[in-house]
Amino acid sequence: MPSIKEEVEEANSKSVSRMMESEPVWIDVGTAEEKLSMKGRTLLHAGPPIDWKRASGPLRGAVIGASLYEEWAETPGEAERMAERGEIGLDCTHHHNAVGPMAGVISPSMPLYELMDEKHGTRTYSNMNEGIGKVLRYGAYGEDVIERLKWMGSVLAPVLKATIEEARKESGRGISLKPMIAQALTMGDEAHNRNNATTSLLIRQVVPFMLKSGLDRKMLFEAAKFMNENNFTALNLGMAAAKAMSLAAHDVPHSTLVTVMSRNGTDAGIWVSSLGNRWYTAPAPVPRGLWFPGFSEADANPDIGDSAITETAGFGGFAMATAPAIVAWVGGSVQSAIEVTNRMYEITYAKHKYFQIPFLNFKGTPTGIDIRKILKTGILPAINTGIAHKKAGVGQIGAGTVSFPMEVFRASLKGYVDKYGV
Amino acid sequence: MPSIKEEVEEANSKSVSRMMESEPVWIDVGTAEEKLSMKGRTLLHAGPPIDWKRASGPLRGAVIGASLYEEWAETPGEAERMAERGEIGLDCTHHHNAVGPMAGVISPSMPLYELMDEKHGTRTYSNMNEGIGKVLRYGAYGEDVIERLKWMGSVLAPVLKATIEEARKESGRGISLKPMIAQALTMGDEAHNRNNATTSLLIRQVVPFMLKSGLDRKMLFEAAKFMNENNFTALNLGMAAAKAMSLAAHDVPHSTLVTVMSRNGTDAGIWVSSLGNRWYTAPAPVPRGLWFPGFSEADANPDIGDSAITETAGFGGFAMATAPAIVAWVGGSVQSAIEVTNRMYEITYAKHKYFQIPFLNFKGTPTGIDIRKILKTGILPAINTGIAHKKAGVGQIGAGTVSFPMEVFRASLKGYVDKYGV
Repeated sequence: MPSIKEEVEEANSKSVSRMMESEPVWIDVGTAEEKLSMKGRTLLHAGPPIDWKRASGPLRGAVIGASLYEEWAETPGEAERMAERGEIGLDCTHHHNAVGPMAGVISPSMPLYELMDEKHGTRTYSNMNEGIGKVLRYGAYGEDVIERLKWMGSVLAPVLKATIEEARKESGRGISLKPMIAQALTMGDEAHNRNNATTSLLIRQVVPFMLKSGLDRKMLFEAAKFMNENNFTALNLGMAAAKAMSLAAHDVPHSTLVTVMSRNGTDAGIWVSSLGNRWYTAPAPVPRGLWFPGFSEADANPDIGDSAITETAGFGGFAMATAPAIVAWVGGSVQSAIEVTNRMYEITYAKHKYFQIPFLNFKGTPTGIDIRKILKTGILPAINTGIAHKKAGVGQIGAGTVSFPMEVFRASLKGYVDKYGV
Repeated sequence: MPSIKEEVEEANSKSVSRMMESEPVWIDVGTAEEKLSMKGRTLLHAGPPIDWKRASGPLRGAVIGASLYEEWAETPGEAERMAERGEIGLDCTHHHNAVGPMAGVISPSMPLYELMDEKHGTRTYSNMNEGIGKVLRYGAYGEDVIERLKWMGSVLAPVLKATIEEARKESGRGISLKPMIAQALTMGDEAHNRNNATTSLLIRQVVPFMLKSGLDRKMLFEAAKFMNENNFTALNLGMAAAKAMSLAAHDVPHSTLVTVMSRNGTDAGIWVSSLGNRWYTAPAPVPRGLWFPGFSEADANPDIGDSAITETAGFGGFAMATAPAIVAWVGGSVQSAIEVTNRMYEITYAKHKYFQIPFLNFKGTPTGIDIRKILKTGILPAINTGIAHKKAGVGQIGAGTVSFPMEVFRASLKGYVDKYGV
């Protein structure tokens, strides 16, 4: 009989291997109603479960905005009252294999990317990126925000749907995300808070298919312009890919690897592979970083968003060393970026087989966060993140870095000990 | 009266400043006949002047191919005999402010990019990139090569012309190259032998304008597909931009900075800012590098092409440290790439104001090659380059690195001493 330790090693090896061998491919676009069978007045949100009462400003703002977008309410006040009365259901994105950056709010008629993990057969989803600044995911809900969301539903989504259909006709399989992320990691992206290369690679790859679609030129022009003007266009696809990877690593008995890290603006929460869909949570910390003009740390909401799924899958903050130019966006120095990556090797199980850091002599990125190693070393996962204003309605006020709280890892290890009696 | 040394310092400072402040903008597309008033059976070629007799295999191959493309000859043999009889004139690209990678052959009906230096008012030109492998610039002239060139003239060029016209309508000025190169240098390109980011940035920037043009969708699709499938698409535009920059640095009295480095496959040659259009030449060395399957150094032609204009302008091989992934294409190690850049600081006059290397804490690239420093240190400029088969008709067989021969710098310093009597 193998020792407990051997059993855990084997489980983690299997878990991380499934993560790295996952093959997420973007295959379709559809509304949340179509793809996730969302019905009625329900919204998905990033992070662990939460109700309106405990929801932070940016999540409240996004709930208000989504209610206006869905025309459940005519004014922000009305939306707020509906939410207070419990007339708007809240559920976690991760419970539907979906992810969304920041507030991560997904409403039934919002368009989603659909990805298929060709290796494991699962499907994952994300919403579409609106750009930076005053946008729903940062809690803004002004008329311009709602108008942009409507345009995304009526122009961007049909263009992307027609585009991916053309791509599938040509290749038989859609747009593969892992090679795109791997390449972007050799092009100065860590593919969480810097997506300049990923977005460029995405656009150049889809453009021929946009042109091949029979759609109206004005729609195509608007969509191409919108995608080009936003360096975060590819983020949501990358997150859905990371969700596919970490989902593949999930539910491996005895595995101590983290398969979800996420925050809802109030709590930070994780899943551990062998502990099912049980959330281990603790208060979300406030990120440190660089502030947009006129804002400071005093305005910042605690950490929010599903985007830490990128770090969970071995890139983002864990790959900081490959993205030195990011320090102009999130703060810190080039040396500190390298140190972050080097530190992450101490709490991960493997070096990624496909995601490499040219500057570290093509070393694989630190992949597969092991709760045992976190407890043993005291080193916490490093996340790159956007920063939302703590008040509903304002939007993004900066970008920076944040650690995940030790408490969630301690609690999950206790859960592990309880379950496996070790 | 300033000392000679002060005069030289001032001249070099002015020269390098003009280089860095140059603002090359892509403004038009047209044939060499239209843009350079090329007439009759004349071809431009890369590097210093040369005649058919001394021309290397790849240059001969490109001359043959261009003659077939122009329908001056019906067979390679006929083209060869015409060239032997002196019926095909050869002139240097640099004599027309044009540049072309490898053989750099430009014939009258070939389409060119036209750039305007908004700062200094000069115009520079380059041909369009065909991709890698069996292509004219590497000396191949098979039917597929000629067919591709015809397609480039009849589809790619009109698409790019319509695109740049739309871009000018929108912005009033065309597509600015310096910011694109600067950004690509933060994305793992050195923008000579690795243009993955530059090409991606170019495509995403022009796509909305391609869509806005009234052109046939099939043409647009073909052009977008062709550009996307070739990571060297942006190289030629970058070279024309580098030509604009180095041209701005040229003709500054007393300046000891190099303003052209180029090779024709037989000779390597340079210009020095204060020494006019006088070529200083020496035999071109054979590059070292990585070989395509089935080829080796024994098959390699001596160094060829105008693309060393990128190093002349402070990027390419001089910026190796920012492009660690390039070692998979040209050979060497990540550490050696960093060392190359560090060594180039010893023979250059300035750190570039706009081109930065994030990994070296955003240090400017080594810019403005000073012949005095080369003679003093014995360090030779490091060039990244493609490698052509030495026989006409074969094409690209690898990629690697090469130094410029010391002899040309020694000869130019002698020329400088003769002229200025110092």
